[in-house]
Amino acid sequence: MSKEEKQITHEKVFDGHLLHVYKDKVLCPNGNESTREYIMHQGASCVLAFLPDGRIIMEKQFRYPFHKEVYELPAGKLDPNESNERCAIRELEEETGWHANKMEYYGAVYPSIAYTDEVIHLYVAKDLVKSEQHLDKDETLEVLYMTLDDVVNMIAKDEIRDSKTIALISRYVLKNR
Amino acid sequence: MSKEEKQITHEKVFDGHLLHVYKDKVLCPNGNESTREYIMHQGASCVLAFLPDGRIIMEKQFRYPFHKEVYELPAGKLDPNESNERCAIRELEEETGWHANKMEYYGAVYPSIAYTDEVIHLYVAKDLVKSEQHLDKDETLEVLYMTLDDVVNMIAKDEIRDSKTIALISRYVLKNR
Repeated sequence: MSKEEKQITHEKVFDGHLLHVYKDKVLCPNGNESTREYIMHQGASCVLAFLPDGRIIMEKQFRYPFHKEVYELPAGKLDPNESNERCAIRELEEETGWHANKMEYYGAVYPSIAYTDEVIHLYVAKDLVKSEQHLDKDETLEVLYMTLDDVVNMIAKDEIRDSKTIALISRYVLKNR
Repeated sequence: MSKEEKQITHEKVFDGHLLHVYKDKVLCPNGNESTREYIMHQGASCVLAFLPDGRIIMEKQFRYPFHKEVYELPAGKLDPNESNERCAIRELEEETGWHANKMEYYGAVYPSIAYTDEVIHLYVAKDLVKSEQHLDKDETLEVLYMTLDDVVNMIAKDEIRDSKTIALISRYVLKNR
């Protein structure tokens, strides 16, 4: 049996600066009608960047929905017509002041499959050279240099909870066992 | 320097069945004003359940924002006044027809820190007994029994992209190395 849900109606219910929210009426495969509310998102890239000395670049950033600072890897949304890799290079440089000459693709993660179509593309960056940090005018963050082992231990101990960070670090560890 | 962003105004911009969207005006620590658009979410629980034969319970579910089927662990939203653990037990039983007598807490994951305050609580379930599946009327999913090794390999190979699934499987693997 096909599990596909067929779109009956499609309505934009909020068109904000960041969030674009839609409400669709759908026909479920069992014949019932339902509604699906979800965000349409341009996508993002996230970077695990290795410094020449082997440490990795982390950030500690105040995240408004949680009203606290959160540990995470550098990441950001795609600009219009920007490739995933170009976004990864740009966000790393803007947020941390490091330019990566080498980017390797590590697949993607879907942060919230129930209510956003956001795809976060994962990259491992090497061959870094010092550049300049350029934060957005509403962005404040602390750049941290940590060992991969320390970050892995923080994930295991529930001290890192950001999903893209766990996904990229875990996939890197699993692929390089 | 404090990185806190102070709330100036707080407005509900969409009040749906699933999504409750807010737009706040905030004062950034550098003195700039900005807006933050985000979802307020009741929270959820996600379960890594081990069958008596050692295999784990996975699901393949059609996810409307992606218009395709996605591999994921059993999970669901908290009912009003429900504990995280009770939610984990209930969702596992409703979605898969297995009742867990033992639940161990594995911390939490923040799926999308930029725009939702959702916290997904992670549990490992053991001592399972067969019960009855009770799907919601708009829910269709396939229950799969897989080995942990197969699921870990699918994460490494970018065949599993759901963030809560990667977070829980990875934390389990990292804590039980």
